[in-house]
Amino acid sequence: VTSEIIAVGSELLTPQRVDTNSLFLTRKLNECGIEVVRKSIIGDDREKLTNAICNARKSSDLVITTGGLGPTLDDITRDAVAKAVDCELVYHDQITQGIRERFLRRGHKMAEVNRRQAYIVKGADILENPKGTAPGQWFKDALGILILLPGPPRELEPMVEHECVPRLKKIGSPHKYHTVIMRSAGVPESELDERIGPIYSTASSVATTILAAPGDIQIHLRACGDTIEQAQVLAEALAEKIENELGDAIYNRGSEEIEEVVGTHLQRLGLTLAVAESCTGGLLAQRLTAIQGSSKYFLGGWVSYTESSKTNFLGVPESTIVKYGSVSKEAAKAMALQAKNKSGASFSVSITGFAGPARDTDTAPVGTVYIGVADPSGCVEVSHHCFSGDRSFVRMLAVQTALRLLFSTIRNQ
Amino acid sequence: VTSEIIAVGSELLTPQRVDTNSLFLTRKLNECGIEVVRKSIIGDDREKLTNAICNARKSSDLVITTGGLGPTLDDITRDAVAKAVDCELVYHDQITQGIRERFLRRGHKMAEVNRRQAYIVKGADILENPKGTAPGQWFKDALGILILLPGPPRELEPMVEHECVPRLKKIGSPHKYHTVIMRSAGVPESELDERIGPIYSTASSVATTILAAPGDIQIHLRACGDTIEQAQVLAEALAEKIENELGDAIYNRGSEEIEEVVGTHLQRLGLTLAVAESCTGGLLAQRLTAIQGSSKYFLGGWVSYTESSKTNFLGVPESTIVKYGSVSKEAAKAMALQAKNKSGASFSVSITGFAGPARDTDTAPVGTVYIGVADPSGCVEVSHHCFSGDRSFVRMLAVQTALRLLFSTIRNQ
Repeated sequence: VTSEIIAVGSELLTPQRVDTNSLFLTRKLNECGIEVVRKSIIGDDREKLTNAICNARKSSDLVITTGGLGPTLDDITRDAVAKAVDCELVYHDQITQGIRERFLRRGHKMAEVNRRQAYIVKGADILENPKGTAPGQWFKDALGILILLPGPPRELEPMVEHECVPRLKKIGSPHKYHTVIMRSAGVPESELDERIGPIYSTASSVATTILAAPGDIQIHLRACGDTIEQAQVLAEALAEKIENELGDAIYNRGSEEIEEVVGTHLQRLGLTLAVAESCTGGLLAQRLTAIQGSSKYFLGGWVSYTESSKTNFLGVPESTIVKYGSVSKEAAKAMALQAKNKSGASFSVSITGFAGPARDTDTAPVGTVYIGVADPSGCVEVSHHCFSGDRSFVRMLAVQTALRLLFSTIRNQ
Repeated sequence: VTSEIIAVGSELLTPQRVDTNSLFLTRKLNECGIEVVRKSIIGDDREKLTNAICNARKSSDLVITTGGLGPTLDDITRDAVAKAVDCELVYHDQITQGIRERFLRRGHKMAEVNRRQAYIVKGADILENPKGTAPGQWFKDALGILILLPGPPRELEPMVEHECVPRLKKIGSPHKYHTVIMRSAGVPESELDERIGPIYSTASSVATTILAAPGDIQIHLRACGDTIEQAQVLAEALAEKIENELGDAIYNRGSEEIEEVVGTHLQRLGLTLAVAESCTGGLLAQRLTAIQGSSKYFLGGWVSYTESSKTNFLGVPESTIVKYGSVSKEAAKAMALQAKNKSGASFSVSITGFAGPARDTDTAPVGTVYIGVADPSGCVEVSHHCFSGDRSFVRMLAVQTALRLLFSTIRNQ
């Protein structure tokens, strides 16, 4: 069973607005075993909307419109739908009475324009809207189902939950779905795909999606079976094959970010962490502390952003900075050691580099980053990286890489 | 001149992902005098994409696809476009060579699948992609223009800016637009709209949009005139009236974030800043250092995340913590003073609070935050706040408020 969502409203075609109703709808539809194959956003244009609905009905079993059910002249969904399904609109006086009472309860008089909201496509069922004035509509003919929903999320969401989901479950596919998410770091997307492509392409009943973010890749395996158990077995079997191929490059089976996985491991081991950051300016600490409960293992950090602060704040020997520079293997090592010693943490991580776009010295190019990881024995591994990209990208990659290196160190304890 | 944007990728049809490229594209298209009349999102389905492109070309002058230009089998845009415009794909060996060199520079070998990215629709112009492997394509025939852009925003945005905007300006409508952006902090959205609604609603040739983010409001004024100068005059006149009404609540006329405005002021005054953070865990330092050149005025910071770190790292007197607790007016004051004194900065900011969801003590509810701002004379103002929302929302509001308070202090010097 396939569906298409059409969001209506010229304000959704401005550079500022994004349609979020479709995310909620997609989740609900998927839960009912219905796929979303296309989403569209169309302005307040009767003809374009009529055409879009006609085209959508040709290829999908179910078409959902959101918005355009208000009382004003530019609310055109009712008219466009009537034209598309070639049925007239029927006026329902009891809807007007309901809207009138709603206004009265709030001490307002209903504006006469609200009568427009009482027109229903002939043959459609009315979907109650306890949160607003515009009722939804559920229309069915030989071509399929067409659902009209109001635009405001606080009206749409309860209407979907209470009026639509019970009906959608009856038409959804009896197939059951199970999704496994795996996360990987440290292997470029193209290499990863080359390695696992031959594996997942043989599993025809599992839809594999690869989502690449800087320094982090998500692998989504969505299996379809006759029962939920069968879907589970299919997804898990493929996940295991992929895990065997990628080995340590998989840091998690699940959707948690690497900072959360790091936290889980530290907590299980009863160990702690501190950080010292230069070019990433607090981004590493910020990601670690975004996880709730992180105060159980994260002691804190230093943002030693300037050369003098590395000495003043953190106690890196001035001679190290003078001799090797603040972006150097030696500086990264000293920063990690100082963070560990000053805080008493089990592990520490240091990051120093040039995030760009300008740089103070000619010693190394923009994108040069040194990352130090100290383990409980006080041994520090420093690695050298050369990231390319703009300032925020270099910072993000540096943090992502630092978390990956920290995680390997923790995992190997 | 009308346009349609089609975003390609099954991951954009999941409940987790939203297409944001179209927002950037809409802004650029509008600036070139081109309207967006429809946006669509389509999965990795060759036939559906081909149909969507054919239909879009029937009603719009310009069709833009984003995504689906990657190297893997599920990257189907090239094929679908070739089918839709009925032209073959031509292999360009110099594109493969460029991709190969790109990988070599990073110390990787190009995977053979990347050769797929070297196929160009016959007759299309190649749009350079300095940030990634997939070149864009600009195709034109009797039906109109079709542009193929890569999906990752960091590749798409510079390509649009450098390769597309100059060409788009030539085909856009002769009406001229000018946009003024103003940013405001410290006044709730409903109050702000009540105050400026009567002002902007009289300016019929200026489209006013109010975008509210947590603790920050953007006011966009988009004026349309026969010439760019006329549009400018209209927008600026309205901006001045709004500024007169809102006064100090406007922190910037321009799109810069408050951390950038803070930086500009500090640099102009030749003064410096340091921070000490508890519940925000590096988020404030991270935002300040996201601005390039921030090392000229930002010395660094402490993430004193645990109680003991406030004493150990930062030197807050243990007696203060014992007597008043680490989330208290006194702790915030001591943190700000210690950060200022230890760093030698002109200004310092401290944040301590409960971001939730759990909290260690019963002294104050989740969302309680104290913010301290120390000025060059060593005088510290501490304010008490009670934010509601989840962990990340409380952290974001705390940082936003701290920046606003810091900015007032700097402005009043």
